[in-house]
Amino acid sequence: MTLSTELTELPGVRHPIVLAPMGGAAGGALAAAVSGAGGLGLLGGGYGDREWLERELPIVAAGTDRPWGVGFLTWAIDSDAVEQALEFSPAAVMLSFGDPGPFVERIRRLDAVLIVQVTDLDEARRAVDVGADVIVAQGTESGGHGARHGRSTLPFVPLVVDLAGPVPVLAAGGIADGRGVAAALALGAAGALIGTRFQATAEALVDPATSKALVEGRGQDTERNSVLDIARGARWPMEKYTARTLGHPYLDRWRGREAELAADPMARQDYRDDVARRAIPPMPVWAGEAVDLISDLPSAADLVTTLAVQAEEALARAGRRRPH
Amino acid sequence: MTLSTELTELPGVRHPIVLAPMGGAAGGALAAAVSGAGGLGLLGGGYGDREWLERELPIVAAGTDRPWGVGFLTWAIDSDAVEQALEFSPAAVMLSFGDPGPFVERIRRLDAVLIVQVTDLDEARRAVDVGADVIVAQGTESGGHGARHGRSTLPFVPLVVDLAGPVPVLAAGGIADGRGVAAALALGAAGALIGTRFQATAEALVDPATSKALVEGRGQDTERNSVLDIARGARWPMEKYTARTLGHPYLDRWRGREAELAADPMARQDYRDDVARRAIPPMPVWAGEAVDLISDLPSAADLVTTLAVQAEEALARAGRRRPH
Repeated sequence: MTLSTELTELPGVRHPIVLAPMGGAAGGALAAAVSGAGGLGLLGGGYGDREWLERELPIVAAGTDRPWGVGFLTWAIDSDAVEQALEFSPAAVMLSFGDPGPFVERIRRLDAVLIVQVTDLDEARRAVDVGADVIVAQGTESGGHGARHGRSTLPFVPLVVDLAGPVPVLAAGGIADGRGVAAALALGAAGALIGTRFQATAEALVDPATSKALVEGRGQDTERNSVLDIARGARWPMEKYTARTLGHPYLDRWRGREAELAADPMARQDYRDDVARRAIPPMPVWAGEAVDLISDLPSAADLVTTLAVQAEEALARAGRRRPH
Repeated sequence: MTLSTELTELPGVRHPIVLAPMGGAAGGALAAAVSGAGGLGLLGGGYGDREWLERELPIVAAGTDRPWGVGFLTWAIDSDAVEQALEFSPAAVMLSFGDPGPFVERIRRLDAVLIVQVTDLDEARRAVDVGADVIVAQGTESGGHGARHGRSTLPFVPLVVDLAGPVPVLAAGGIADGRGVAAALALGAAGALIGTRFQATAEALVDPATSKALVEGRGQDTERNSVLDIARGARWPMEKYTARTLGHPYLDRWRGREAELAADPMARQDYRDDVARRAIPPMPVWAGEAVDLISDLPSAADLVTTLAVQAEEALARAGRRRPH
């Protein structure tokens, strides 16, 4: 037996578990492994980098017979990136952070499932209006980027479920074991979109230092910030989005002085120099609040199975009843 | 049939639903109604005000044959308040925000269940060490006071469950309907501690303006802050604790200028004057992020029943399985 939701009604999807399309880290091998194990693997298309997609799209397409998808940062991409992905016939395309409108028609015409990630109720309404097939309700516990003024997953998901119905909703943010998956379903979600936990797998495209940081990291050491986006010169619309990362020397140095950092080109040069001489990691370690629950680096397939079994157990235990 | 957890194994407790001991608002009638309906009602003993306790303790004690309890702010009370409560033979005493150590022996000697609320893993370890019978893991979604640098409920609860086992854990923060209760159980909690939702009931000791604000309020309009504590001259240890409230004129006026407000006795006098001439509410409206889910003012007994039925339904739906 396996848990049954609107998500597992999609042909080929067996577990209500979706790989978050973490830009760069969720490469073809990871997406294929998650889909192969019965979840839904989403390639981390991020900014729509042509070279990265040219490399990773064939890997996921060749790596699994089951449905897989690709995710993009809506504010960053143009239609070329979407076209490039659609040539490989993904079963799903996920759009996050920005207005999905301009890309909807093209995606739906090719019968790909349109997944739209939202961080507040206005975005959720917009996702319904453009005809999203699946909506991801992302809470502020999430690792990596999300709303600066966001909502927590537990109270946010039921609201989006009520607003979006009958469109199925996935819960994202703070989920790193099967109990979290079970809680997502209890809240009315059709599944869980999971990032940080899949970043700590054998197939994730991260360096060993990042893997180690994820295994050792604690949720209380994660922090939503713009400092590292500014320092590394990222193009994120920072008035709307911050990113949750583990601690970092630049975070300690510049916390609370973001405007000063943004106005100081020397500081950004220092950052590049520090990366070049390996004084700091090449990229921030994006990690969600549930990072404490990560203590190993399993294969993604084993992780999908473990999460599914744990979720079934958690729901069976939670649903125990007695006569009264 | 009713859901069965470690909490419902306590004689007389039928549903895994606990009334948060909201200082002032959770009076004797509300606590008695929650216990009478099969939850566990906790009187909001707050700072241990003798006069308030003298009035409300007899009401709850006379109002129900089932177990009930009383909660206190650990940093604020002395042993007199605990003694005063223990004379009425509460089944449980809950201690929040501060070291429970000095009060433990007296409470346990009278066979009251000791409930300790925690906001981080250090506090959870301390609660286990002092021998708490039940631990409440409070997330930052909570209305009212909580940790300034807290954790979100969804990722926090499983950590406390793992740390505290076999001591049962209650989830608090962001829970305002049966789906939230179901999610709490899925995360491994033995029940949910619920505040804001019970503040919007017929029995809560709040003025009509507060009830109206809770019914109309939205989670995105709630905000953790110290501004209102400073303005009203509250004694809270503000380096550790903030409070989540709905919007307020003083919040807009002083947000980000807390030190200035604290150093300005005239501003605090203005606040008192504005309260006196009813330009602002007599108290901040404490409300959690799940306040959007509140749209009515039921009796507390009906609410307990509704939450229990919804939770059962949510778990039954989430646990649906299919052969594979």
